Amino acid sequence: MTLSTRSSRHEQGARHGPQTAKSQDNTGRSDIGRAEGFSDGVLAIIITLLVLDLKTPQGEPGRLLAGLLAQWPTYVAYATSYLYVAVIWLNHKATFKRIHTIDRGLHWANVAVLFTTALLPFATAVIADAVQKGNPSDARTAVGLYALVGALLCVSWLWLFHRLHTNPHLIESHVEEGFFQRERTRAWVGVALYVIAGVIGSVIAPTIALTIFFALAVFYGFTNEGLFAVQRRSK
Amino acid sequence: MTLSTRSSRHEQGARHGPQTAKSQDNTGRSDIGRAEGFSDGVLAIIITLLVLDLKTPQGEPGRLLAGLLAQWPTYVAYATSYLYVAVIWLNHKATFKRIHTIDRGLHWANVAVLFTTALLPFATAVIADAVQKGNPSDARTAVGLYALVGALLCVSWLWLFHRLHTNPHLIESHVEEGFFQRERTRAWVGVALYVIAGVIGSVIAPTIALTIFFALAVFYGFTNEGLFAVQRRSK
Amino acid sequence: MTLSTRSSRHEQGARHGPQTAKSQDNTGRSDIGRAEGFSDGVLAIIITLLVLDLKTPQGEPGRLLAGLLAQWPTYVAYATSYLYVAVIWLNHKATFKRIHTIDRGLHWANVAVLFTTALLPFATAVIADAVQKGNPSDARTAVGLYALVGALLCVSWLWLFHRLHTNPHLIESHVEEGFFQRERTRAWVGVALYVIAGVIGSVIAPTIALTIFFALAVFYGFTNEGLFAVQRRSK
Amino acid sequence: MTLSTRSSRHEQGARHGPQTAKSQDNTGRSDIGRAEGFSDGVLAIIITLLVLDLKTPQGEPGRLLAGLLAQWPTYVAYATSYLYVAVIWLNHKATFKRIHTIDRGLHWANVAVLFTTALLPFATAVIADAVQKGNPSDARTAVGLYALVGALLCVSWLWLFHRLHTNPHLIESHVEEGFFQRERTRAWVGVALYVIAGVIGSVIAPTIALTIFFALAVFYGFTNEGLFAVQRRSK
Repeated sequence: MTLSTRSSRHEQGARHGPQTAKSQDNTGRSDIGRAEGFSDGVLAIIITLLVLDLKTPQGEPGRLLAGLLAQWPTYVAYATSYLYVAVIWLNHKATFKRIHTIDRGLHWANVAVLFTTALLPFATAVIADAVQKGNPSDARTAVGLYALVGALLCVSWLWLFHRLHTNPHLIESHVEEGFFQRERTRAWVGVALYVIAGVIGSVIAPTIALTIFFALAVFYGFTNEGLFAVQRRSK
Repeated sequence: MTLSTRSSRHEQGARHGPQTAKSQDNTGRSDIGRAEGFSDGVLAIIITLLVLDLKTPQGEPGRLLAGLLAQWPTYVAYATSYLYVAVIWLNHKATFKRIHTIDRGLHWANVAVLFTTALLPFATAVIADAVQKGNPSDARTAVGLYALVGALLCVSWLWLFHRLHTNPHLIESHVEEGFFQRERTRAWVGVALYVIAGVIGSVIAPTIALTIFFALAVFYGFTNEGLFAVQRRSK
Repeated sequence: MTLSTRSSRHEQGARHGPQTAKSQDNTGRSDIGRAEGFSDGVLAIIITLLVLDLKTPQGEPGRLLAGLLAQWPTYVAYATSYLYVAVIWLNHKATFKRIHTIDRGLHWANVAVLFTTALLPFATAVIADAVQKGNPSDARTAVGLYALVGALLCVSWLWLFHRLHTNPHLIESHVEEGFFQRERTRAWVGVALYVIAGVIGSVIAPTIALTIFFALAVFYGFTNEGLFAVQRRSK
Repeated sequence: MTLSTRSSRHEQGARHGPQTAKSQDNTGRSDIGRAEGFSDGVLAIIITLLVLDLKTPQGEPGRLLAGLLAQWPTYVAYATSYLYVAVIWLNHKATFKRIHTIDRGLHWANVAVLFTTALLPFATAVIADAVQKGNPSDARTAVGLYALVGALLCVSWLWLFHRLHTNPHLIESHVEEGFFQRERTRAWVGVALYVIAGVIGSVIAPTIALTIFFALAVFYGFTNEGLFAVQRRSK
């Protein structure tokens, strides 16, 4: 924030009289600030949820090492779920950075994103449990559940991006045209791939589905154009 | 932040008189900012509480799908509770946006709102459990508990709105006259309907009570005049 | 925050050159802001901890009402603990409002306050359990534990207030002289009364101790001079 | 915030060029602000995780005191883990205070720090459990696990400090040259000592390892040059 702009904002505020002054009386957070703070809180809780599942194994004395090693699927589930929620947080940050003003519809789309994200640790834990037990039928069910949660997650982002694309007044003016249209396409790819992975995983082979799940998380982690743009800017 | 700047800021503050000085030396959050941050934290925890109840079903191998499906009341409870807390967060945001300054009484009313909201996941889980088990007597009890929590929640909002209506100096000057009087009426409607639903549900039919509960959550989600005003303003 | 002061802060910043400008480059939170945000997060978690203990009673079908009623000590524990943490949050807010700059010692005193506050729900739950079971010897133990936690809590506030009193450069200049000396006395009263209550409760009668505990929570809720000052200012 | 002010702010922003406009239209948090808020949330949850393990002992009536005393390793674990996470929070604050702008790589290093910190309560609980049970073989395993988590934690800080050292444009200009090079060395010391402690503890004597663990936590608490600098500045 540069000094010159700051003060000119004030001059301008003075010109607009009491109404502008008032909006500065309340020194609370802005609408976007509160939505970001609330989202950060929810995502911080979700990201640490699975660590609660890491428990001291209760076996016979002298068998602690074996007990710890047997919990490996829980460790993988914790790491995977943690990384995915981190990717979602980075995407969330990149999106909200481009929002100029937030309306009721956008609030609800954001609430939907948080809702579906909160289901990720549960779906991941179900897969971890199925992998540990090794029953093929349960593995198919677990993969199907994860695909369902993943597809719902992409649908909620789709809603958010669609609303932003069709309501340009909600977007910051510096955002390149077509940005949220491309984001919407990215979300559509996710919906399609999660549905395909779910069908393949439930019917043919769960391993193929797991590969698609992994690829999608990496895809969202790396192709986030918003983040690339941020990087460019900070150079 | 260097000491020199700090002290010169003091001097400058002194020029503008004690009141101004006070509000800016401390670069921490304002009273309203902290109340909002604390409330966002509490509401973020409450909204994710029920997701902790989503556990991998522990049945025989090959029965995962059946186990997951049998948990449906927990999913409904999670979704319902999540949506209701989201509505409360939106109402909270719309209310605090209109608060100019916050006094001790307002802090306590806010604490009461958070206290009663925190009981919602518990009351919802009790209903989900009663629905799953299907005992008619327990269903009446569960519905009665939920109605009690819902009525207490509305009473706490009533307290908040009443205090704001009777202490106009706490409200931002741009808020239309009678705004918090109307909000108070909305809260009274809630208290009355939760009591009626509780009596009907405990004595006659729990299903009617559930319908009223659902209608009330939708009512608060859609008739929040504060939110409508925000939308109007951002157009 | 008034317009005029804002801009004059900038002019002054310009006078002090690059160093001042730099501290505005980082648009992150200030030291006090982060300490407040972190404290708000910890206190938000603590205040909702006991609600996790509210569980659907698992009894025979048709016995839900009896099961819910039998949990009454948990409800009392939740309400008491919630109110006490709310009082602590209000005291925390009133204290940090008066802090001008925060040093390492102050950070540690703050961390100590959060640490001892986090023990409150545990001590409260132990009392609730002892009350429910009705064993006189256990009641004495539970009351002794609570007195210990209460005394430690007051010691941590004592540390915070002592440091602020003996380091006036850490305090905002508008704070009346002797403010934190009086706060320190208030904390001493707490330490003494918790020790006395602990001794009486463990040796003579737990009921007397519970009365002192309750009186102390009310005392801290109402005699917080900081809050009174805030109220005066907002009139 | 009224529409009129918003748009006039745009105009004014336009005068100062696109870059300025970008940083101020959106009244949400900055990138650093959000990273700090999210980190504070995650660390607040981690620091209170172990308090969830403090449960009312469920023994025979009249045996509450014995039950409470038998839980002593849990109390030590809670205190140790709490103090260590507090030290990490102070280091985190001191580091982010020196960050000028944050890029994708820095975000990921930060996410790694939070990930490894979240494993601390788990590793601490495993040690507490092994100490309580007294099996020598399990004590070695527990000490090895803690050393592994500690080493990973230092590796994540190493990543963060290395990135800051090799990308000077990410650092505030007032930071002394070589600051993050020294921090990097501090992290290397940690990695080496945790590996050594792990080997000694698993092969020779767990007690020596515990002493090194304790010394390292104290070392990071006191030698944080960032904090010393802050103290100097505030004098």
